[in-house]
Amino acid sequence: MSRLREIEDLLVDDRIKGIPGGVVPFRLGDIGSHRWNLLRESLPLPVAILKASALTHNGRWMASFLELSGAVISPHGKTTMSPQLFERQLDDGAWAITVATVHQIQVCRHYGFSRIVLANQLVGRQAVRYVLDELRDDPGFDFYCLVDSVVGVELLAAAARAHPVSRPVKVLLEGGTPGGRTGCRNLDAALAVARSVKAAAPHVALHGVEGFEGLIHAGTLTEREAKVAAFLDFLAEIAMACQREELFAEGPIVLSAGGSAFYDMVVDRFRRIDLGRETMMLTRSGCYLSHDSAMYRRYFERVRERAAEVDGLGEGLRPALQLWTYVQSRPEPEKIILTMGRRDVSFDAGMPTPELWFRPGVHAGPRAVAEGCTVTELNDQHTHLKVPAESDFRVGDMMAFGISHPCTTFDKWQLVYVVDDDYTVVSAVKTFF
Amino acid sequence: MSRLREIEDLLVDDRIKGIPGGVVPFRLGDIGSHRWNLLRESLPLPVAILKASALTHNGRWMASFLELSGAVISPHGKTTMSPQLFERQLDDGAWAITVATVHQIQVCRHYGFSRIVLANQLVGRQAVRYVLDELRDDPGFDFYCLVDSVVGVELLAAAARAHPVSRPVKVLLEGGTPGGRTGCRNLDAALAVARSVKAAAPHVALHGVEGFEGLIHAGTLTEREAKVAAFLDFLAEIAMACQREELFAEGPIVLSAGGSAFYDMVVDRFRRIDLGRETMMLTRSGCYLSHDSAMYRRYFERVRERAAEVDGLGEGLRPALQLWTYVQSRPEPEKIILTMGRRDVSFDAGMPTPELWFRPGVHAGPRAVAEGCTVTELNDQHTHLKVPAESDFRVGDMMAFGISHPCTTFDKWQLVYVVDDDYTVVSAVKTFF
Repeated sequence: MSRLREIEDLLVDDRIKGIPGGVVPFRLGDIGSHRWNLLRESLPLPVAILKASALTHNGRWMASFLELSGAVISPHGKTTMSPQLFERQLDDGAWAITVATVHQIQVCRHYGFSRIVLANQLVGRQAVRYVLDELRDDPGFDFYCLVDSVVGVELLAAAARAHPVSRPVKVLLEGGTPGGRTGCRNLDAALAVARSVKAAAPHVALHGVEGFEGLIHAGTLTEREAKVAAFLDFLAEIAMACQREELFAEGPIVLSAGGSAFYDMVVDRFRRIDLGRETMMLTRSGCYLSHDSAMYRRYFERVRERAAEVDGLGEGLRPALQLWTYVQSRPEPEKIILTMGRRDVSFDAGMPTPELWFRPGVHAGPRAVAEGCTVTELNDQHTHLKVPAESDFRVGDMMAFGISHPCTTFDKWQLVYVVDDDYTVVSAVKTFF
Repeated sequence: MSRLREIEDLLVDDRIKGIPGGVVPFRLGDIGSHRWNLLRESLPLPVAILKASALTHNGRWMASFLELSGAVISPHGKTTMSPQLFERQLDDGAWAITVATVHQIQVCRHYGFSRIVLANQLVGRQAVRYVLDELRDDPGFDFYCLVDSVVGVELLAAAARAHPVSRPVKVLLEGGTPGGRTGCRNLDAALAVARSVKAAAPHVALHGVEGFEGLIHAGTLTEREAKVAAFLDFLAEIAMACQREELFAEGPIVLSAGGSAFYDMVVDRFRRIDLGRETMMLTRSGCYLSHDSAMYRRYFERVRERAAEVDGLGEGLRPALQLWTYVQSRPEPEKIILTMGRRDVSFDAGMPTPELWFRPGVHAGPRAVAEGCTVTELNDQHTHLKVPAESDFRVGDMMAFGISHPCTTFDKWQLVYVVDDDYTVVSAVKTFF
């Protein structure tokens, strides 16, 4: 990953949200030399921070889980879109980086990542042309994408035919659920697509079966788990049928599922599939590294309940991502308005939750926010927080929020500070959204 | 605005979303020389485009409206955060640029904008320190911010006292509504803040009264308009009371309100305020330039109904912003999945609406999307579109969407293409979120 040096060498200035106004432009890699400290008000708020200790802990936790389960991971890079964090994930043992779009492939390729799983269909003239160019120009580029329609396979194969590459485009056959997102809805449809891949040899080649269980919903969690289990059975059925018809290309067969909510169920089901050939269980959690304080925290508690062996791994994932902001107004005793809005924090999977507050120059350290404080509304640049009338918050106080859904928080920041446990900035990660 | 040349000189490459993969890095100002055409599939999708002709039309429309009304505009820059568009707005006659955060001030200052209205309270050590530095270092910097609390005024005045600048920080007194966002809730509170400004002379100085009516909601539009009218009366009452007590500093008194929904009511009410001194009506619409296809389109129709003179201005605002994407899957006859998600388009004020579709290499031009196609869900990187089972859409087709709420679409793009009426890229605007 020598090209990551390019990110360290980027000149950063105050056009980037979160950087103090008027600072002399500096190398991103030198950001720690400022010794900026959040609680000493070195930074304009809002800022997004990652706790260095939590990142390290979470990386180790996932490595232990994978070792226990026998699966490998291709973490979903779309969560953070930070090549610096991708490299860290590879250092922790990840097999590849997963992405969602051709733009995300471009960013990974720019920074030298050589194994990429596009967990999507590859469509559009520029997207297909670009991937074929990359495959042609770099024999070390190991690329996988999904197929779920005969039309899609034919378009991809036609492009590959017109634009020769010395090896096939590797595809994974996507299974889906009725009413769900992409993916074949039944075995007949899946087999038709798999056969069309074989018919399009040598331009494309089938290397596995894929599905995404994270969007399956149901009335209760137990019902949802039952549906997820049935879906994983369906993926197993597709894989068995493709193997029976000898539709897979040579090499290990990839069985891939697993977002950040059900990866324990995925590995539990996949390790019971016997295709009589080498297989690889590929999970794709994007959110384990940053984790969160709401949605994925609840999912994780459920993983612990379902998977007894997870208890053996000790302390679970820690929320690493936090947003800090100022109280700018307390126009009513029960309402405070903060300098953070929906352009700074996710709100699609729950509102941010206040965790800490701090009065600069007065408090010795951050204090827990008591019960009874709730975000009632986010505007583009403001948060409305309902607070008890007798609470002590005032204009100029700082407040820290936990988030729900890291993906849609990361994408609101071009730069996320990494801090030590004293809130001193030790480094920063650049994102590419 | 000579510093805008810096943006034209930026080297652009395929790490920016919407730029074709593998392109040789080029000057942003040279983007038109590629002659990229959307319908010839020169671009990877999704992309966000602005129609050049609609921008020109909308700029002229607002200039005509302002001429008719006697008001001036400080367009809210937070909508686009594009200094190139800010310059265009100044060229169209804007008096200043409005912003929401200190980061947005930093971007404006970097590119040489000299008159800035921060439509917010200025809080936090770095934010205050930065603005005071800028005032000290540039005698031509004309800056306004809001105050709505005595505590806030005292914090600002204390900082100015400790960090001398040769002139006062100009503030506007913010009026608000019960249950609303920032702003004093009643005349007593407002006068207490205004008196604290006077007491803090010469460090701060009161130059006007401000409010934001756009967040006022009610059961029906008529009730909402009645509440907006009452709020404008309240702002007038504050201004009259401050004038009676001689709390305003020398110079024209600024009366400011008006987002993108009720600016006609604002100018209608404000021109009936007689303070016996020179006053300036300052509107702040951020969305007129791009307009949209849903929320602001409906608001505009209502402006036309309310304000008879608007009819004299001919054709109203046109939606300039559009998103283009590909069909990547049609997993069920009534469902298509597109390569665009909530990371690409706004969804906080209504889902995007399909407008056009196009089959590359087959259709001669884009066709209107018939009734009956509705976005049912957005994921981070996908759109779920319900379509009639008999509709002709297939994998690889292109589809264009109108948007609702430009602010939260612009902030998902670092680069927005500007196209001519044939969808050829003529230029691009860079954003700074």
